[in-house]
Amino acid sequence: MIASYYEGNKTFSVKSAIQVAPGPGEVRLDVAYCGICGTDIHIFHGAMDKRVDMPQTIGHEASATVAEIGEGVTGLAIGDSVVVRPLDNRGETTADRGISHICKDLKFIGIDAPGAFQNSWTVPAFTLHKLPANTDMKTAALAEPLAVACHDVRLGEVKQDELAVVLGGGPIGLLVALVSQAVGARVILSELNPFRLEFARSLGIETVDPREVDLVKLCQERSGGSGADIVFEVSGAKPAALSMTDLLAIRGRIVVVAIYPQPTEINLFQFFWKELQMKGARVYEPEDYEKAVQLVASGALPLDRMITHVETLENIQQAFDQLEHAGNAVKVLIDCRG
Amino acid sequence: MIASYYEGNKTFSVKSAIQVAPGPGEVRLDVAYCGICGTDIHIFHGAMDKRVDMPQTIGHEASATVAEIGEGVTGLAIGDSVVVRPLDNRGETTADRGISHICKDLKFIGIDAPGAFQNSWTVPAFTLHKLPANTDMKTAALAEPLAVACHDVRLGEVKQDELAVVLGGGPIGLLVALVSQAVGARVILSELNPFRLEFARSLGIETVDPREVDLVKLCQERSGGSGADIVFEVSGAKPAALSMTDLLAIRGRIVVVAIYPQPTEINLFQFFWKELQMKGARVYEPEDYEKAVQLVASGALPLDRMITHVETLENIQQAFDQLEHAGNAVKVLIDCRG
Repeated sequence: MIASYYEGNKTFSVKSAIQVAPGPGEVRLDVAYCGICGTDIHIFHGAMDKRVDMPQTIGHEASATVAEIGEGVTGLAIGDSVVVRPLDNRGETTADRGISHICKDLKFIGIDAPGAFQNSWTVPAFTLHKLPANTDMKTAALAEPLAVACHDVRLGEVKQDELAVVLGGGPIGLLVALVSQAVGARVILSELNPFRLEFARSLGIETVDPREVDLVKLCQERSGGSGADIVFEVSGAKPAALSMTDLLAIRGRIVVVAIYPQPTEINLFQFFWKELQMKGARVYEPEDYEKAVQLVASGALPLDRMITHVETLENIQQAFDQLEHAGNAVKVLIDCRG
Repeated sequence: MIASYYEGNKTFSVKSAIQVAPGPGEVRLDVAYCGICGTDIHIFHGAMDKRVDMPQTIGHEASATVAEIGEGVTGLAIGDSVVVRPLDNRGETTADRGISHICKDLKFIGIDAPGAFQNSWTVPAFTLHKLPANTDMKTAALAEPLAVACHDVRLGEVKQDELAVVLGGGPIGLLVALVSQAVGARVILSELNPFRLEFARSLGIETVDPREVDLVKLCQERSGGSGADIVFEVSGAKPAALSMTDLLAIRGRIVVVAIYPQPTEINLFQFFWKELQMKGARVYEPEDYEKAVQLVASGALPLDRMITHVETLENIQQAFDQLEHAGNAVKVLIDCRG
């Protein structure tokens, strides 16, 4: 088998490696495909060097097949197609009050422990969700970001016919828009980048460039003067955070999906005046993964069209190098099949 | 009868005036007491001159007695003791979606229409809440700010044994602390002003000066390492807004009570990381008033001790002048009895 290793300084090595036999409660997987996440790019840029124990195999958006089963694991058979929910909450304590998926000592597999950019990957069995037979393994690699979107939409309590605005049209923004549409919401996606705008439109999402269209006015028009029901802040842009409150109706909701490394200005007067609500949303819970698996298997969403590039594991360095400059990439998969 | 008028430029006039006969659906009240609210001080300072149609009788924290009943009003008798919920939502439209108390065209009686700093006050009957017989009319004048606190605590979904932190120890902060305690929460009030700290302690509220005590650490200690369940931001201070997210447990809640005229920095990373929730809260709904009336009548809260000064209506100018400089005032009532 071969495995890739992030070595720091925007460098991957790809080496032959030895399969890790599954211990009790573990499963060894043959990885099929693994998507490159924004977090992986962040790691590549050195922004998480303090957290990542280099050299490290990263990657956490994987589809895979069960290859070997450790002691005590039930409900899985060799050859099962699976996706991995890469959260290790074994450090959870009573202080976390049962909120496992964001417990204080959460370990993220693919950042804090070896990830999926390798042929063979050994993980705890509790991280696995089985795929229905014949699920396409490429689109299945999108289950992880799709589960993020399912979590965001569920925490946002999006309802049929509601007007939802998604700020930011990267992969997560697109998936939040698609999942909101699947729930029956009317979605407007706001984005500045022309390629992303065009791409979102090609997926059947209504888009606006807020420099060209008065988004506040548009939300008013589409809601009989009330304003939007919900805003998903997925852009991470300070101007979006500052103006998002203007889009909303009385008691409108905001879900903060983007990661803001620094504090940012928020219009708290609008929170008071319209009794707005805001929730942060991070990763996913098992039910979000089940929903994502169901959406992948159903083929209801145009996930296949979001996969713009597939690269070999040997070429992972080039894949990351290109992605840094590419203006036309949406979801890039690494083919990890041995 | 006499009435006071805000004339602009920190000036009140007090003049003899003519009682306004109640029209259909209206009631004329003999005002008993009316508290001075932070908003009244704001008006006095000229900060709301664009909104207030001068000369205007302001004041909206009133207890009163029914003196005259207009056509079509049912369920009220002359001599009934009442408090006034000073919200006129008759401009409500379908775009407000039934959220009456903060409808777009809400008129606040005592700002946008004549208020209670006069002997006789004519208001729509739908604004009245009856008091039980023998309710003390001075503490009843606190029903309005108490209803604000009841609304804040209800929207905050405060539960028994939860750890609640109140940032800011003015009258509303004190009432939020007392109502949270009445629900069974463990309350810590954070305040910088030594008089307010001492006053809050005298009401049986635990207090901290966050410059002397590490409030984050204290919240951790009191919660087995989880953090606070809820923070009420009542201070309006930018450092409080910036640091409030640090106090909270995973999925902790924030209620924004203070009015921030300008956008302010918020730690959105903490929202994401801990899936925090934030709600704005404004004024009150009828059920909050009913709860406030019940708390006033029960005598369960030390409301009488919050009334530090009572001034005559003739002396309203002096009352406002003094309040501006007084370091030892909590709730000042104007005695409006004719």
